[in-house]
Amino acid sequence: MDKRYLFTPGPTPVPPQVLAAMGEPVVHHRSPDFRPIYERCLARLREVCRTESDVLLFTASGTGAFESAVVNLVSPGEPHLVVSAGSFGERWIAMTSAYGADVDELRYAWGETPDPEDVRARLAAREAKAVWIVQSETSTGVVADVQAIAAVANEAGALVVVDAVSSLGAVPCETDAWGLDVVVSGSQKALMTPPGLGLAAVSDAAVAATGSTPRFYFDWQRTRDAQRKLDAPFTPPVSLVTALDVALGMLLDEGLEAVFERHVRLGRAARAGAKAMGLELFSPDEDRSAVVTAVLSPDAAELISGVRNRFGITLAGGQGDLKGKIFRIGHIGWFDVFDITTALAAIEIVLAELDADIERGVAVTAALDAYEHSSVA
Amino acid sequence: MDKRYLFTPGPTPVPPQVLAAMGEPVVHHRSPDFRPIYERCLARLREVCRTESDVLLFTASGTGAFESAVVNLVSPGEPHLVVSAGSFGERWIAMTSAYGADVDELRYAWGETPDPEDVRARLAAREAKAVWIVQSETSTGVVADVQAIAAVANEAGALVVVDAVSSLGAVPCETDAWGLDVVVSGSQKALMTPPGLGLAAVSDAAVAATGSTPRFYFDWQRTRDAQRKLDAPFTPPVSLVTALDVALGMLLDEGLEAVFERHVRLGRAARAGAKAMGLELFSPDEDRSAVVTAVLSPDAAELISGVRNRFGITLAGGQGDLKGKIFRIGHIGWFDVFDITTALAAIEIVLAELDADIERGVAVTAALDAYEHSSVA
Repeated sequence: MDKRYLFTPGPTPVPPQVLAAMGEPVVHHRSPDFRPIYERCLARLREVCRTESDVLLFTASGTGAFESAVVNLVSPGEPHLVVSAGSFGERWIAMTSAYGADVDELRYAWGETPDPEDVRARLAAREAKAVWIVQSETSTGVVADVQAIAAVANEAGALVVVDAVSSLGAVPCETDAWGLDVVVSGSQKALMTPPGLGLAAVSDAAVAATGSTPRFYFDWQRTRDAQRKLDAPFTPPVSLVTALDVALGMLLDEGLEAVFERHVRLGRAARAGAKAMGLELFSPDEDRSAVVTAVLSPDAAELISGVRNRFGITLAGGQGDLKGKIFRIGHIGWFDVFDITTALAAIEIVLAELDADIERGVAVTAALDAYEHSSVA
Repeated sequence: MDKRYLFTPGPTPVPPQVLAAMGEPVVHHRSPDFRPIYERCLARLREVCRTESDVLLFTASGTGAFESAVVNLVSPGEPHLVVSAGSFGERWIAMTSAYGADVDELRYAWGETPDPEDVRARLAAREAKAVWIVQSETSTGVVADVQAIAAVANEAGALVVVDAVSSLGAVPCETDAWGLDVVVSGSQKALMTPPGLGLAAVSDAAVAATGSTPRFYFDWQRTRDAQRKLDAPFTPPVSLVTALDVALGMLLDEGLEAVFERHVRLGRAARAGAKAMGLELFSPDEDRSAVVTAVLSPDAAELISGVRNRFGITLAGGQGDLKGKIFRIGHIGWFDVFDITTALAAIEIVLAELDADIERGVAVTAALDAYEHSSVA
């Protein structure tokens, strides 16, 4: 018996029908075997991103797709405002700096929630070509209020670039309605597909604002021109595109609003269960935290190896300074409440064995109650 | 009945056991579920590349992996010598130029074979930091004598960067023995895996020679440091790595020498069949042309749509100026002689219907004879 459970906030579990698509025979990307799939996948991506703009696909991780935004939008010496409240925010500061941006760093402690008024103050003090913001900071469980931050940035005439790698398809991300110029994501989170595909929804304004940094592989214009002819500039990962198309179809069949509501309820269930056990949350205890639940525990390291060794369960630990201090339960994508109760039940058993000060026998019921009886506004 | 046959020189057919690996449940890349696979895959890649150096994996197409060589090795204004005799050589001229290299372009007509003495003369006239050469020019079927060109480059003190995207695992590429500093390839050709993974074998000398061009995603040092700890700097495409590991195991079980011999015989069979039919080769009629066979035909466009519509067979056409003038039969990777006879038989039927001036009933036998009775020196 070797049943495994994946609760990491990326890669996430992949539905069987998407795995089946991964195993289909390979077809040529410029043949009629592929073009209809490609066309449908690109259309579905626009739907999921809630945009009329092109969604550009890159054979790359989410970081690679994010780099497409940096090499297209950043020219050396230009002012940019990067908001950071965790591991990924720090990565984007490092990346924009590596490409020579004059970066105004709006830094928060890990776990804090970025405040739109801070963005307003920074932009009043110094112009920025673009504001770079993480929607779901996977390292902490915080989901930023991208709508409010984008409103402030738009008012100041700055472009808005959003890292929606772990949030797209889990929480609302209204690309056009919120005035987001670039939304970056990856296949391996809420889009329920194995890792390997990065994407960037790119507005006309963003394409018009591209700068002087040399680029080739990640050049937006080259990719956009090709995609508009249903081609790709370089051999695309046909298996991953085919799988993504199936997964997007599932998301859209469920309905994006229903998907978002499910994630809100999953987050409530995870937090309710952890609290009922007597654990302290590191994630904000609010509905927007619907992607990953981070929990404080001095036993985090032993817990993670314990659930792995006893039950084949993979949880995530803390990153950076949070290593050994928190554990994280991802609930992005192919999740229902019984995944949450499985995680909680296993955590409870192993923490009890570690003599942690927890209450037994209540977490699962609390999670089920929170999931079943919560209605989302 | 919907049986399909893929004869394009990338993507290539993927063996069932590799497809099965693509469809396995996704595991976390930093978990014990993945690390042993990753470690074995990296070791097998070194074996296939015949190198003691690190083989760096990128979530990218072959072009992306090639870009890693450009952004790491090219600094603006530096002299580089790029050899081009087809579509991919032209791409590398465009890419190195985009990154500001002072490019000496050694250009041949498409279909010509680069001459090591021309490289010697160019390097005598002007120093170059690196010589960039395509091993198998997929657009023409020409396989360059990389060993001889590398010897000339090494003598002149230049680094050697090889595009082995369609050749690695099909024809010999002795990274260390030939003094190749960088060997770039992709998963979707002779490595019998779906597209999505790029790789670069990178010598210490190449890493020591990295320049000032900004980079992040494709930075060699970052990727090498992570891989040496059995980590990846960014989420790797775990399904593709798992599939590649299976495919590399198959290649190494067959034995690289046997694999190379099989490809030589496949090339002989394809050329013998085409010639027996009365067609004229565009590929050089020599054993090194073991990757793709290009054939001249004024009926190329109709032939390609004909075999597709009647038999579900995908052949490749010509690129650039060769469009409509040639067709190409890829025989890279998961191929045996019956794939060649299938392609030839279908081509014969459709060309006959197009009233082409061909001889019927001889191609298949000629191909089988060439395959069976040829012994490779």
